[in-house]
Amino acid sequence: MRQDRNATRSSETELGFDPALKDDARLAFVGRIRTSWSRGNCPKNIRLARDTGQGAWIEMDHAYLSALNGLEAGQGMVLIYWMFEARRDLLTQSPDHIDGTRGTFALRSPNRPNPLALSAVTITGIDRTTGRIDIDAIDCFDGTPLVDMKPWLPTIDMPAGESDSP
Amino acid sequence: MRQDRNATRSSETELGFDPALKDDARLAFVGRIRTSWSRGNCPKNIRLARDTGQGAWIEMDHAYLSALNGLEAGQGMVLIYWMFEARRDLLTQSPDHIDGTRGTFALRSPNRPNPLALSAVTITGIDRTTGRIDIDAIDCFDGTPLVDMKPWLPTIDMPAGESDSP
Repeated sequence: MRQDRNATRSSETELGFDPALKDDARLAFVGRIRTSWSRGNCPKNIRLARDTGQGAWIEMDHAYLSALNGLEAGQGMVLIYWMFEARRDLLTQSPDHIDGTRGTFALRSPNRPNPLALSAVTITGIDRTTGRIDIDAIDCFDGTPLVDMKPWLPTIDMPAGESDSP
Repeated sequence: MRQDRNATRSSETELGFDPALKDDARLAFVGRIRTSWSRGNCPKNIRLARDTGQGAWIEMDHAYLSALNGLEAGQGMVLIYWMFEARRDLLTQSPDHIDGTRGTFALRSPNRPNPLALSAVTITGIDRTTGRIDIDAIDCFDGTPLVDMKPWLPTIDMPAGESDSP
C-alpha cells in the first residue's frame, strides 16, 4: 500500500497539465451508484465484489426516468461512471499488482486523463417510478456518479474472435 | 431513413434542457479515430464494419505517447469515444431498427445525455513514436474524438454468467 495515495512514485510519469482545463466536452451526471464500499473496504476488482455477494443499486436522477423504458431485470448492462477521486495527470503508473511501470492506457487504473470507469453488470430489479435499479455487484465507492449505461451486446462489447472462443 | 435526422418523432420524448449545461465534469479528447466512414457510407454497427474488411486507426495526441507503453498488437481494447453529432436531449427514441419506442438507456443509440460510445476492438499494429494505433474495425465517422481506451478484460467487460456460457 503506498503511504500517500496521491504521491507520484519515482518510476511514474506526469502529464504536466490538468486535462479538465482542455474542456473539450462537458458531462451531466445522470445518477449515483450506491454501494457498501468506501476507502478501506472496497474490493479491488469486480470479480471480488461479486464474490462478496453484496449487491448495489443505481439512483437515477428523476429527469431521466422515462429513459429507463424497456430495461428489465436479468439484462446485462455496461455502466460508465466517473472516478471522482482519481488523478488525471499520470501517463505511466506502477500499481501494486504489476511488476514495473506501464502506460495508463495499458491499465484499468482509475487514474487516467478522463477518469471514466466501465463495468458489465446484471440488472436484478428495477423500479421505473423511483429510478432505483438494483445490480448484482460493482467495485466502486458509494455515491460514485453515473455517466451513462447501455445494454451489453456481445458483438459490440467483445473483440472479434473472443466471442467465437469457448 | 428519417427525412430530417435532427427532428424529434411524435413518439419520442425530450429532456427539456441541454445536459452540457450541467457541467458536472469536463473531458479532454486524447486523440482522433480515423476511418473510411462519413455520413452516408458508415456501417450501421461494428459487426458490419468488421465485415467490410476496412481497418481503422487512432491518432493519439502526442502529449499521451508514453501512456501507450505496454500496448501490443493482438490485444483487445475497449475504446470510449465522443459522438460529436449526437443529440443529448432524447429520453425515448424510435430508431428504424426497432418496433415502437424505447428509453435511451435501453438503446445503443449515439443520441444520449452523454454521447459516449463504446466498442471492443483489436490492436493490429502500434507505433509508439507517432502515436498511430491500427485497429481491426470500427463504425464511427472519420475524425471522431477519442476519450479513453482500456485493455479488454472478460471479468470486467462481460456480465457475470456470460463468461461461463459457450
